[in-house]
Amino acid sequence: MEAMSAPVTPEKTDSDNSADGDAALATVLRAALDGPWHQTREEVRANIDRAELLPDPSRTLDQARADILDTMRTLAEKGFAAPGFAADHGGTGDVGAAVTGIETLGYADLSLMVKSGVQWGLFGGAVENLGTARHHEKYVPGIINLDVLGCFAMTETGHGSNVASVETTATYDPATQEFVIHSPTASARKDYIGGAGQHARVAAVFAQLITGGPGEEPEGRGVHCFVVPIRDDDGTDLPGVATSDCGYKGGLAGVDNGRILFDNVRIPAENLLNKYGDVAADGTYSSPIESTNKRFFTMLGTLIRGRVCVAATAGAAGRKALTLATRYGLLRKQFEAPDEQGEVTILDYLGHQRKLLPLIAKSYAIAFAQNDITARLAEGDPEAARTLEADVAGFKAYSTWHGSTAVNIAREACGGAGYLSENQLPIIRGDIDVFTTFEGDNTVLTQLIGKELLGAYAEDMRGLSARGWVRFIATMARDVVAEKTAVRQVIQTILDDSDENTDDSPLTNRGTQIRLFRNREDHLLRTCAQRLRKSTSDDDAFEVFNSAQDHLLKVGHAHTERLVLESMIAAIVEVEDEAARELLWKVCDLFVYSALEADLGWFLMHRHVSVERAKAIRRGVNDLCADLRPHARTLIDAFGVPENLLHTPMLDHG
Amino acid sequence: MEAMSAPVTPEKTDSDNSADGDAALATVLRAALDGPWHQTREEVRANIDRAELLPDPSRTLDQARADILDTMRTLAEKGFAAPGFAADHGGTGDVGAAVTGIETLGYADLSLMVKSGVQWGLFGGAVENLGTARHHEKYVPGIINLDVLGCFAMTETGHGSNVASVETTATYDPATQEFVIHSPTASARKDYIGGAGQHARVAAVFAQLITGGPGEEPEGRGVHCFVVPIRDDDGTDLPGVATSDCGYKGGLAGVDNGRILFDNVRIPAENLLNKYGDVAADGTYSSPIESTNKRFFTMLGTLIRGRVCVAATAGAAGRKALTLATRYGLLRKQFEAPDEQGEVTILDYLGHQRKLLPLIAKSYAIAFAQNDITARLAEGDPEAARTLEADVAGFKAYSTWHGSTAVNIAREACGGAGYLSENQLPIIRGDIDVFTTFEGDNTVLTQLIGKELLGAYAEDMRGLSARGWVRFIATMARDVVAEKTAVRQVIQTILDDSDENTDDSPLTNRGTQIRLFRNREDHLLRTCAQRLRKSTSDDDAFEVFNSAQDHLLKVGHAHTERLVLESMIAAIVEVEDEAARELLWKVCDLFVYSALEADLGWFLMHRHVSVERAKAIRRGVNDLCADLRPHARTLIDAFGVPENLLHTPMLDHG
Repeated sequence: MEAMSAPVTPEKTDSDNSADGDAALATVLRAALDGPWHQTREEVRANIDRAELLPDPSRTLDQARADILDTMRTLAEKGFAAPGFAADHGGTGDVGAAVTGIETLGYADLSLMVKSGVQWGLFGGAVENLGTARHHEKYVPGIINLDVLGCFAMTETGHGSNVASVETTATYDPATQEFVIHSPTASARKDYIGGAGQHARVAAVFAQLITGGPGEEPEGRGVHCFVVPIRDDDGTDLPGVATSDCGYKGGLAGVDNGRILFDNVRIPAENLLNKYGDVAADGTYSSPIESTNKRFFTMLGTLIRGRVCVAATAGAAGRKALTLATRYGLLRKQFEAPDEQGEVTILDYLGHQRKLLPLIAKSYAIAFAQNDITARLAEGDPEAARTLEADVAGFKAYSTWHGSTAVNIAREACGGAGYLSENQLPIIRGDIDVFTTFEGDNTVLTQLIGKELLGAYAEDMRGLSARGWVRFIATMARDVVAEKTAVRQVIQTILDDSDENTDDSPLTNRGTQIRLFRNREDHLLRTCAQRLRKSTSDDDAFEVFNSAQDHLLKVGHAHTERLVLESMIAAIVEVEDEAARELLWKVCDLFVYSALEADLGWFLMHRHVSVERAKAIRRGVNDLCADLRPHARTLIDAFGVPENLLHTPMLDHG
Repeated sequence: MEAMSAPVTPEKTDSDNSADGDAALATVLRAALDGPWHQTREEVRANIDRAELLPDPSRTLDQARADILDTMRTLAEKGFAAPGFAADHGGTGDVGAAVTGIETLGYADLSLMVKSGVQWGLFGGAVENLGTARHHEKYVPGIINLDVLGCFAMTETGHGSNVASVETTATYDPATQEFVIHSPTASARKDYIGGAGQHARVAAVFAQLITGGPGEEPEGRGVHCFVVPIRDDDGTDLPGVATSDCGYKGGLAGVDNGRILFDNVRIPAENLLNKYGDVAADGTYSSPIESTNKRFFTMLGTLIRGRVCVAATAGAAGRKALTLATRYGLLRKQFEAPDEQGEVTILDYLGHQRKLLPLIAKSYAIAFAQNDITARLAEGDPEAARTLEADVAGFKAYSTWHGSTAVNIAREACGGAGYLSENQLPIIRGDIDVFTTFEGDNTVLTQLIGKELLGAYAEDMRGLSARGWVRFIATMARDVVAEKTAVRQVIQTILDDSDENTDDSPLTNRGTQIRLFRNREDHLLRTCAQRLRKSTSDDDAFEVFNSAQDHLLKVGHAHTERLVLESMIAAIVEVEDEAARELLWKVCDLFVYSALEADLGWFLMHRHVSVERAKAIRRGVNDLCADLRPHARTLIDAFGVPENLLHTPMLDHG
């Protein structure tokens, strides 16, 4: 990093409470936000509370990547990766701690989170969840301690969202009992693969399995995953493997994304991760799941941990950016103050409050919802896997769009200072950008949850084309729409205690808030189903689907936002400290009011909100901003971003 | 740039017209969009149509900066900078061409635009507009040919938006007939100054002038601008000057932003740019403008060209990003096609159309409005200076927020490919980010236009604190609100021919469209004035201001959007080619419908739009997307981004 002049910032404001925050209250709030993995978060915070972990923009790509790998080694030595793997495979089997650990790395450097997530979450997760004992014994200890550096080679140049159509082939050769891994076209190239650029020695390769038993014509068995060595110990491509480097990206300098082309690479039969599909020595294919389609989605379903980690980390990145911007907003003054003594602290302007405080409130909501998602993942209930998978899809999109927006607004709220890399925000900005894309394009994921809700999670609907799906919906019984997840007791109680007519009940009533969000979701679902059922023939089914796509996306958004609100409310109810709880209810109000404000056109148009109430919502956001302004510092301190990770010239005092 | 593997992209779609575009139509549209400076644009396009001008992310900061300076030298040799300066100063005096030339550089590299804009627009503009003959003779030729490398040192660490309060002092010493330039505090440091990091030899320094005539106590005369040498020919800081480098930023690697501290630096008296204020040898101060405040705003007013260039270039950057994303959207396919022959072209999805097409429509609107703004600037009517300045403030915010959003959405619309620097979008993303901040923070600028409209452009209102301004508004006659710029004839005619009751008239009627935008602006202005007049005392004036700040910002936005629409309509009326005109009306409809959709809550809440119409607006956006989809390629081709600046692996065929 090149020499910088001494940091200079405006004088700190007089020590009013509003600038300093309430440390005791922040501690209580932090425990509430941290949720079940409070201890894990605190341990990781202590581990990463070092300014030298912050990304240094002066590094070359090689240096940045090497630094991240070094940091991963120090984490591995401290047992960081063990929770992600079952105890009998060499881990400690605490999935919630694994996710939360990865999430918390986001406070330091998103490259560290992503490269760790690739190694331990995606690559490790593929071996753990798609492999069997022979793979667990052979690979898991090395994955945990980094002796085995891997990558997760699913996406191809030609197929990202539609991974069922990857073109890479894995053809079984009974003569040698090997699979032949091959890229038959240019678009079959594995692309954007984290780790493939430089460090990975082994790849978990998703490919179309082609095999047949004795006397059978070899045929496609759908996508399966194979462990394929790609580089020797010196980092040289193995024969038949051609890796290349994706080079510079919008951010994530520490992650070596790359490409892989396979030219008839032979691997031993045992390298098939064979939990959900196996090939006998003679080439006979077998699977515990008969349908190719169902098998593929079952395999994908076991891999959602990566998506959960991405959602979680986007939340963390948003919280860090908002911490930086809010602290700057409490230091920075501009334009003459009312008392004509000095200038106005910029966070005292309503316009500035309206930029940051609703995002802080939404960050709280998302943090609470994340805890629920992580807990559901950790529970691992197979009965609930399908709904969890759909909810994770919607939530990943919701959380990463929020994270990206929050970072962007935080950058802008810090003006010129926010554009200097020394103040971290532009680096976080560049890093977070792809979170809306990887682990599932947000638009595709939002559509997915919409489709699941409309299809009532029917198994035989998955993998259908848009046209097929519309025909499926059209044939469903008219009253089967969303098979809702069971309403949790606390929410049911609140609903029971509230007025069914939302207009008659104050907007700060929790039941009314939940009802508004639920009514929106139900209305959208019902009307979307009606539109889709208008398709009368195969011929117009794609047209019908396509003309309703914006509606379908809105269903996904409304569902996710309702879940987020319910998670937030359920979590706040549990907070015992009264001052903390009261403050959190204000935060909840601001989340609700600003969510309603953002979608006010819809609420008015469909008469879920009256004109008078709409005006009250707009005023309410302003009033809540004023109410929460004195607590701004407390609210961000509760995020618990380690102090050394916030040291920036714009915040440090000269 | 490190070696990249051979580019691979999905096969191009079958040659339907919708993917190839209509070259003849695009040419007509391009001429319309290019407006009065079509010829200048075409010349600059030809000049920059070279792939080697594209930013290379592998360069060090030093290399990037040196490359940009080299490119500027080749531009200078071709006479690129001459239009920005009066003929009798050594230029050719064509302000419109100057602005348009700078704007067009944005198609190549935003660093090139910014560094050129600093040298020729900001620094050169200060000398040109604030200086007198002695400065023009001495500096302008060297500014044009780059013998004199300068920077524009206005912003300080402590003051960006509130530049009237900069702390740097320029104290006249009659004994030596020198000014003493000094940074009295740490926060007086000049900061983020383009060129100050490395290349600039001279700075146009804005400082508080302190002087007094014989027998007078020296006193502050407000902010004035001084030419201050900062580095010798070798680039070493001159005595008393301490420059430092802002280092890495979110983007704009080719711009050497830096800081300057002055320790009692002495400059000759003649270095005061003395058009609006002068100091006699004995220290006597004189100015053609009596009020310090009015003088300062007059000086600032002459410098709006920089702001116009920033707005213009944000438009260009948005157009380039949308060109890249639209072309990718016409190549990329994903998920099974209706006919089950291959996969669906992603731009055929409504969701994808809704991402890109409304932004393309808004880019058209902004381009037409930019031509009007540039023309008004070039006209240079002193009577209209005040309204132009206010309109430019609002438009800069509008255009740069749009540019930033467009680049961001374009990035996301290209998925993983959009995140690779080789495909340019992440570089444009990093570069454009600060456009919402520099040349005036967007929020402050949007507020400024709101304040001007409410204050009826009264001279003695400028420079008032928030409190003072509210008191001023409260004392104004109740019927004086916005002193509107004269309605242009074509708009008046359209209005005269349209139904006053917007509900009775179709939404595709131009008069109805204009009325909806005008009614929104008027309603917001009137109600904002009412709120502000509720302040009853000095004590609550700041509170009243602050609680209405969101309202005030909305006034600014509504005004600007109305101006943009009127510019667009006035321009389309002039298009002679019928096919082009009809297509442009569709584009105008999409701009209007999506602007209404974005603010539907407001329109419904204030009953400017009925529930039925609101639903029609939402459907209308979808229908217009479907109508314009076949013309997508034509519409972006009309932007005229030089082909060599679009060569990216994701678009090039393997």
